[in-house]
Amino acid sequence: MKKTIESLGEFGLIDKIKEWVPRSPKMICGIGDDTAVFRASSGTYQLLTIDTIVEDIDFKLSKARPEEIGWKALGINLSDIAAMGGTPKLAVISLTLPRKTSLQFVKGFYAGAGKLAKKFNVSIVGGDLSKGAKMSASVALLGESNPRRTIFRKGAKVGDFICVTGTLGGSILGKHLSFTPRIKEGEFLARHGVSSMIDISDGFLQDLNHLVYTPGVTFMISEREIPISKAAMKLARGNRRKALNHALSDGEDFELLCTVSPKNFHKVQKNWRRRFVIPFTAIGRVVRSSEAYRSQARRLGFQHF
Amino acid sequence: MKKTIESLGEFGLIDKIKEWVPRSPKMICGIGDDTAVFRASSGTYQLLTIDTIVEDIDFKLSKARPEEIGWKALGINLSDIAAMGGTPKLAVISLTLPRKTSLQFVKGFYAGAGKLAKKFNVSIVGGDLSKGAKMSASVALLGESNPRRTIFRKGAKVGDFICVTGTLGGSILGKHLSFTPRIKEGEFLARHGVSSMIDISDGFLQDLNHLVYTPGVTFMISEREIPISKAAMKLARGNRRKALNHALSDGEDFELLCTVSPKNFHKVQKNWRRRFVIPFTAIGRVVRSSEAYRSQARRLGFQHF
Repeated sequence: MKKTIESLGEFGLIDKIKEWVPRSPKMICGIGDDTAVFRASSGTYQLLTIDTIVEDIDFKLSKARPEEIGWKALGINLSDIAAMGGTPKLAVISLTLPRKTSLQFVKGFYAGAGKLAKKFNVSIVGGDLSKGAKMSASVALLGESNPRRTIFRKGAKVGDFICVTGTLGGSILGKHLSFTPRIKEGEFLARHGVSSMIDISDGFLQDLNHLVYTPGVTFMISEREIPISKAAMKLARGNRRKALNHALSDGEDFELLCTVSPKNFHKVQKNWRRRFVIPFTAIGRVVRSSEAYRSQARRLGFQHF
Repeated sequence: MKKTIESLGEFGLIDKIKEWVPRSPKMICGIGDDTAVFRASSGTYQLLTIDTIVEDIDFKLSKARPEEIGWKALGINLSDIAAMGGTPKLAVISLTLPRKTSLQFVKGFYAGAGKLAKKFNVSIVGGDLSKGAKMSASVALLGESNPRRTIFRKGAKVGDFICVTGTLGGSILGKHLSFTPRIKEGEFLARHGVSSMIDISDGFLQDLNHLVYTPGVTFMISEREIPISKAAMKLARGNRRKALNHALSDGEDFELLCTVSPKNFHKVQKNWRRRFVIPFTAIGRVVRSSEAYRSQARRLGFQHF
């Protein structure tokens, strides 16, 4: 039987693609992080990312306004730049549309993308139109970052605090279309020297596994500290355990998940409160696998830090 | 009745999008040219472009090998960079795949894209995977160019020769999947100071209309000079008139179409012959509309130059 990509899973397939595509010597960081990172001749880093949303998979035309679809198409890319601590600059949009698409739809799409672009001083500079049976939108985004303030997925160390912005879960009730990419927060966290960072697109636990994957190292999470969103509570009809599952597993929160060294932690937390309204919550720590096993054996779990 | 994009047409829709998307002051050239062009901090120009190919529109899975689909997905973007006289650098690929796609397909796709990338020293640095009912691939490509050697669609002057690389028509017989993007040729032509340039993706006549669109200015073409491809002759079963129609109208030749001043023309032609094997053919001139009307009235057409 021929192997399908379904049997391999997304991350298995990405690993394969990494094998197939030779690593470029120009790259600081390529396939496998939130964006590609490369050194520009001016000495800064440039960040390049691409993301596609597809009708009936990432949005339903019956449930999302065209403005929301345009907002999301650009927003998911901004979120990737945010996760590097970068500043977004220029976007190009490739739109695939069925023939019968209304002009009003396209206008709304660009209004939504344009509104978000303006909010973060991004220029939409070009694109492409194709026809297709289903609507889809690919956005490529070019950004930049300070080499000393660029944060990768790799970098978490034993003892680091695991922190998250905002609240989690239930994005399907609306946030997946109307989220604010955490650009300002990402720049702040990068400036404060967090050790690793990712945006939560696949779900908190899955994305956390991308941050902490060194052999012998794992994480302990205090479930009581997880900032559960109102939407997750609503989805779970008030059942806190179910709401917690939403917060841990739901995709498309587009919050930032990062690790912070104990040395930096209090400064980050203090400055955060002065600067932002949304919460920044420490919910766990990076630990040696042996410690985690011991704790589990004692049925204590991880509760305070 | 609601206006659909079909009733407006692709170029009508692009004009609308230009109205909806504010022009960025950072841009040298944005929506409406082959790529977006902006000044990098190092003083060079950066070029950013995106293009999507969709199953059953741009290729059929029953007729194209995965390697060819990967080649084409990257190649159409390289062709856009070539049309600016630029050098391609980095690509990101967003692939939308049905669940049942074979691993072999994805491997073949990356082998094809990778082969073309290697040929032109392009690094594939990242991407994105989505699921969808139909396969599609969006590629965004970042390149650069020398500010004094960047060629736009705008720039043709009355008296300029209209020239084309390679031969035209019948790409559906195979060239649309296996074409060589004219990167080297585009760099050569930019270095030789051609006045305007575009790649032929929509069809020779349609793309020529993008080069020559100033009120009061038009072009005259010598039909006898059109370099008709063997594929166009084959499609037309040897009927030269039908083959000519293919050469004038078929899309996806991915040759370069440019205008050259009379002062530069002989040098370009002489150096071209030394450097390249594929033909470079002068097929017409940019003229004042009044001249064209006079010629048509005299039924002379345009034949020599």
